[in-house]
Amino acid sequence: MTDTTRLTVPADSLFGLHNLPYGVYSAGGREPRVATRYGDFVVDLARLLGDEVFARPSLNPFMAQGHDRWVAVRAEIAERLRGEVPADAVHELDTVRLHLPVEVADYVDFYASEHHASNLGRIFRPQNPEPLMPNWKHLPVAYHGRAASIVVSGTDIVRPSGQRKGPEDPAPVFGPSTRLDIEAELGFVLGTGSAMGDTVPADEADRHIFGVVLFNDWSARDIQAWEYVPLGPNLGKSFASTISPWVVPLLALESARVPTPPQEPAVLPYLRMTRPWGLDVDVAVEWNGQIVSRPPYSAMYWSPAQMLAHQTVNGAPSRTGDIFASGTISGPEREQRGAFIELTWGGKDPVTVNGLPRTFLEDGDEVALTATAPGPGGTRIGFGEARARILPAKRQQNPAPASATCP
Amino acid sequence: MTDTTRLTVPADSLFGLHNLPYGVYSAGGREPRVATRYGDFVVDLARLLGDEVFARPSLNPFMAQGHDRWVAVRAEIAERLRGEVPADAVHELDTVRLHLPVEVADYVDFYASEHHASNLGRIFRPQNPEPLMPNWKHLPVAYHGRAASIVVSGTDIVRPSGQRKGPEDPAPVFGPSTRLDIEAELGFVLGTGSAMGDTVPADEADRHIFGVVLFNDWSARDIQAWEYVPLGPNLGKSFASTISPWVVPLLALESARVPTPPQEPAVLPYLRMTRPWGLDVDVAVEWNGQIVSRPPYSAMYWSPAQMLAHQTVNGAPSRTGDIFASGTISGPEREQRGAFIELTWGGKDPVTVNGLPRTFLEDGDEVALTATAPGPGGTRIGFGEARARILPAKRQQNPAPASATCP
Repeated sequence: MTDTTRLTVPADSLFGLHNLPYGVYSAGGREPRVATRYGDFVVDLARLLGDEVFARPSLNPFMAQGHDRWVAVRAEIAERLRGEVPADAVHELDTVRLHLPVEVADYVDFYASEHHASNLGRIFRPQNPEPLMPNWKHLPVAYHGRAASIVVSGTDIVRPSGQRKGPEDPAPVFGPSTRLDIEAELGFVLGTGSAMGDTVPADEADRHIFGVVLFNDWSARDIQAWEYVPLGPNLGKSFASTISPWVVPLLALESARVPTPPQEPAVLPYLRMTRPWGLDVDVAVEWNGQIVSRPPYSAMYWSPAQMLAHQTVNGAPSRTGDIFASGTISGPEREQRGAFIELTWGGKDPVTVNGLPRTFLEDGDEVALTATAPGPGGTRIGFGEARARILPAKRQQNPAPASATCP
Repeated sequence: MTDTTRLTVPADSLFGLHNLPYGVYSAGGREPRVATRYGDFVVDLARLLGDEVFARPSLNPFMAQGHDRWVAVRAEIAERLRGEVPADAVHELDTVRLHLPVEVADYVDFYASEHHASNLGRIFRPQNPEPLMPNWKHLPVAYHGRAASIVVSGTDIVRPSGQRKGPEDPAPVFGPSTRLDIEAELGFVLGTGSAMGDTVPADEADRHIFGVVLFNDWSARDIQAWEYVPLGPNLGKSFASTISPWVVPLLALESARVPTPPQEPAVLPYLRMTRPWGLDVDVAVEWNGQIVSRPPYSAMYWSPAQMLAHQTVNGAPSRTGDIFASGTISGPEREQRGAFIELTWGGKDPVTVNGLPRTFLEDGDEVALTATAPGPGGTRIGFGEARARILPAKRQQNPAPASATCP
C-alpha cells in the first residue's frame, strides 16, 4: 500500500482547485518533473496520475498532446486532489526548486498596449502630434527575440554591457548599460503549433494557447536606442527575460475573460474575434519590496488571439513551446505603467522607492512581478511571481590590442 | 566480413577530401542519420567511423562535442576515405533524401554588406545624402528571426499573404505578397555556445563556429515595408528561409580566408580581430536556370567573428544549433547584388530572365543559390545549393463575419 494523504488548502488560496497551474520542480537532487501547485503544496503529476508524460523536465510533451487532453487532465487533477493522494507525490513549496517550465521554441514579443506605445511615442517624438506609428492600429507590431535567454524567476540578471551613443556624443562608447529597465508583460505559451503554410485563425487560438506566465522583458534602453534603427531591438533585449515558474492554464482564466477595448479603425478580417479575448489580470510591479505600479492587462488593445492569428497569417510555422509576450502592459494612469522609462517619463520624473528617488535599475535592485485574476465563484487565481535581482556587469575579457587590428 | 569498396572521386570535384561537408540523409525509408559528401557519394558516418553520435537526425550532438573533436573527426574521415570503406556506408547522392542538417536553436540575421545597406538606403531614402544609418559602421546590425521556418533546399515556398499599404493607399489591404524577393546570404552554424553572462571574443569565434551554409532569406518586401517601423522585420521574413543541406566546415575554408575590407571608423575593442575573417566565397544566384547575379562574400564589411562577438557581448547566451546569417551579400557592381529589390532598383529597372523582363518572384519561379571557395592546392570547395520553387498563396480560411466582431 502506498501511503496517502489528504491535502487541505484555504478556500481563499490563489492556488485552489480553480487554478492548478503547471510547473517543473525538482526535490532532493532528483531529475526535474512536472507538477501542479495546490495551495502551498507542489504535487508531482506523474505520481498523482500515473502518467509518464509528466516524468519529464518540461511541459512540452504534455502540451503537444493537445487541447482535448489538457481539458481531460485538468479535470482529473482536480478530482484526484479532492480525495486521498499518494504522500510521496506531495512536497512543500519551500522545499523544492522550480525550473523553467517550458522548452522554449520561438519567442516573439508584441507591443500590444496602446498606452505604452503612445507614451513611448510622446517621450521620444514629443514634436509629433500623433504618438502612434501609422501601422500600430492595423496590426499587432512584434519582433522575434532570443529564446535561449528566457530564464525562470529567481535567476540573477547580470547587467549587460554594450554600445550606446547619446545625441551629443561624437562616437559610441562601450560599457555597462546605464538605463536598465523592466517591461511588465504576460507571456502566452503555445501548446500546439501549426504547420508551415497554415494559419491559426483568431477563433481557434483557444485550442493552441496552453497557458499564461508573467514575463519581465528586461531592457537596456541606452543599448536599444542606438541599435534599433532599422531592424529593431536586439542586444538591448537579448540578454535576459524572466518568466514565472507556474504556467496558468488558459482554461483557468474563463472568469477573467473580458472584451478588449474597442478597435478603431476596424481590423482586417483575419484579426476579427467572435468571443471576448481580453484578460482581466491585475499585475503588480514590486521594486525592492515596494509596489510602484499596477498595470491592468484588461487595458491591452491587441488580444493574444489576434497576436497568434497575426504571426501565422503569412504561413509561418508555430510550435509547441513557442512563447509570445504581450509587450509592456500599461494602463491610462501613471501608476499603471509597466516600464520604468514610462513611469519616470524617460528618467526625468523619478519615482520614490523606499524613500529614494529612482529612475532606472541599480546593481542589487530586485524586481518582482505578481498578478491575480478572477476565478469562478468569487475566487482569485494567482500567477506566482517573476522575480530577479540585478548583479553588476562583468568585467569584459581583454580584447585584442589595437595594434593587431585586422586588416 | 563486411563488404568494402574504394571510392574514386575526380581530382577537380567540389566535394573532394578538402571539403567533407556534413549533412543529414535518409535512404530506403530509414531514419535520418549524419553523413559526409565525397564527390557524388553520400557516406554514412556512423557506419564509417563506428560512432553512434552520427546515428542521429541532426548534427547537434556531434557539434556539441566541441572544436577539438571536429578537428579529429575531420582528419579521421579523410583518412578512412582514402582506403577501403564499408560498402553499406555508401550511397549515390541521387538515391538519398537530404534533410535539414541542424536542429536550429536561435536564428539571427545580420545586415553585414555595406553595398547592400547602401543600396537600400539610396532606394528608400533617395533624398538623404548618406545612405547608411549612423550606427551601421559601429556595430553589425541584426535582428532575430523565426527558427522554425528554416527549411532545407528543395522545400517548396508558399507565397505569403499579409498586410501591405502603399504610400497612396488610404488603408492597408490584405493579400498575397506582390513583391516577393530573395536574399542571397551565408549562414553560420554555431557548434558550441556560451553561457548566459559570458561573451565570445572575436578571436575565439573559430572555436565556436562549426560551419557554413547557403542561406536564402525569402523576403516579402510589401509586407516588410508596412510592418517594420519601429520593431524591425517580422512577417515579411518569418514565413521561410532556405538553407543548403551540406554544412561546409569552417575548417575546410582556411584557404578562403582573406582580410575583410578596411573598417573606418575604427571599431570598438570588442569587435577587433587578429586574423583574417573575410571569406572568399563566390555565390551565384540562379533564377529559373539563369544566373542573374554573382555576389562576392569577400566584399562583406562585418565578419562572422564580429557578428558572434557582437551578439554575445551583452551576455546573451548562445547554443549549439544557433544559426546567424550574414544578410544579403552584395558587391559593388550591379551584377553582384544579392536581392532582386537591389538588382532591379526597387522594381523600376527589370532584369532579363530567359528573355523576359522580371522584377519580383512569380508563382512557379525557381531560385537556386550555389557557391564555391578556394581550397588548398588549387582545389575548389562546393557548398551545394539552396534551391526552392514558389507555390501560389493559399486561399485564406474564412474569417469570422464582420457582424460578429468583438466587442
